[in-house]
Amino acid sequence: MICETNDTIILSLDTSSKNCSISIAGENKIISEYNFISDNKLSSLLIPALEFVMKTAKLELRDIDVFGVGIGPGLFTGIRVGLSTLKGLIFGKKVPVIPVITFKAIAYKFYKVKSLLIPLIQAKRDEVYMAGYTFANGSLKEIIAPDLIHIKQLKTKLLNLNDFCFIGDGVDIYNNFLKDNFQNSKILNRSSFLATEMCRIAFQEYQNQNFILDPKKIKPFYLRKPDAETSFECSQDKNSRSPQ
Amino acid sequence: MICETNDTIILSLDTSSKNCSISIAGENKIISEYNFISDNKLSSLLIPALEFVMKTAKLELRDIDVFGVGIGPGLFTGIRVGLSTLKGLIFGKKVPVIPVITFKAIAYKFYKVKSLLIPLIQAKRDEVYMAGYTFANGSLKEIIAPDLIHIKQLKTKLLNLNDFCFIGDGVDIYNNFLKDNFQNSKILNRSSFLATEMCRIAFQEYQNQNFILDPKKIKPFYLRKPDAETSFECSQDKNSRSPQ
Repeated sequence: MICETNDTIILSLDTSSKNCSISIAGENKIISEYNFISDNKLSSLLIPALEFVMKTAKLELRDIDVFGVGIGPGLFTGIRVGLSTLKGLIFGKKVPVIPVITFKAIAYKFYKVKSLLIPLIQAKRDEVYMAGYTFANGSLKEIIAPDLIHIKQLKTKLLNLNDFCFIGDGVDIYNNFLKDNFQNSKILNRSSFLATEMCRIAFQEYQNQNFILDPKKIKPFYLRKPDAETSFECSQDKNSRSPQ
Repeated sequence: MICETNDTIILSLDTSSKNCSISIAGENKIISEYNFISDNKLSSLLIPALEFVMKTAKLELRDIDVFGVGIGPGLFTGIRVGLSTLKGLIFGKKVPVIPVITFKAIAYKFYKVKSLLIPLIQAKRDEVYMAGYTFANGSLKEIIAPDLIHIKQLKTKLLNLNDFCFIGDGVDIYNNFLKDNFQNSKILNRSSFLATEMCRIAFQEYQNQNFILDPKKIKPFYLRKPDAETSFECSQDKNSRSPQ
């Protein structure tokens, strides 16, 4: 094992977007991280990637003290594959797991920014997943609850707020829209690979005794039902569709 | 190949510190990156890591159009291992290589910061490698030439300058010193893994036709001679030592 032996070892994985990410960290440092674009090959790439990262870090599964996992919002299939893989890894064990909402991991990339952080994640049909956070004493504080909105609703959503900073992969797609509509805001983007930030969040939550031991409780964070499920519901009862 | 076939594919590797880093990128996006702490196991980890990253990106060596490599300043042995590996990869081929000074890759992590960026890299004996850059129209401009100084010389070095921002792994080690001596400066730190930034720099230099085709011209960027070499010179001629 590369880390000091009494260090808490955290492994996080995030497959909630096509930017897949695996990270292994000690309490204060990254030991190893592997980030890749999945492009529909996630299922065949994820396990070999996990094996490789752990092997080169000279770690066995039993050396991992805490797991972090991205639960979305994001790509439905990606999230399901990630959660299923994690449940496989911890099968039969009582290991602390911290489910991490994607927005929070994005916000952690900008923990020194004093503005209100607005992570935007691209959804389909000109919609975006969004939320609002600030950092207070090193911890994230939720200012706007996670939501799925049409991009044109963003202005209404941020009414009466100022000094904000758009972050996340949505800022690339809607860059012109944001510049035109929010002249005084900041737009920042960094890598969309999130497992390293999930390790940091997981360690913090672990220290606060805020974790899950029962794999059944690890659930995706959905703001919209999968297309397939919605279609199925639609065909069952066209009047009862509620898109959340 | 995961990228669009007419995309320029860049592979960069950096082993100039214990934060080893391999990245493969297209013109505008990262395809795959693998970062790990070497802890004296670099030689045995680097080739398997390269193989793994390329295999999962479904790329062969012949698919790489441009190479970037970290040439220091940093760990002498790490830099030599990195350059030797790169020379092996391009053996017998005429492929563009961009040697990247470590400072520049660190500065690229902060390309939106308007202050004068001062990357600090830890050297031994309370010394730091340092330089000064600003970003102008997306390009890096050298304000202070790379140097190796005692940490206590930093104040003299930055005399008459203001609005600067310390970056790089040196800010962790000298955090208190910097806070005490430069009250109005910013201190920022992000991941010390640099290959992804080296891909960006390499692509930019490649577009500007600023690359090397002859492997013999790929040289480490040393600001201090290796200890072994200095000792050897000392024993040969004690009066002629010039630590560059």
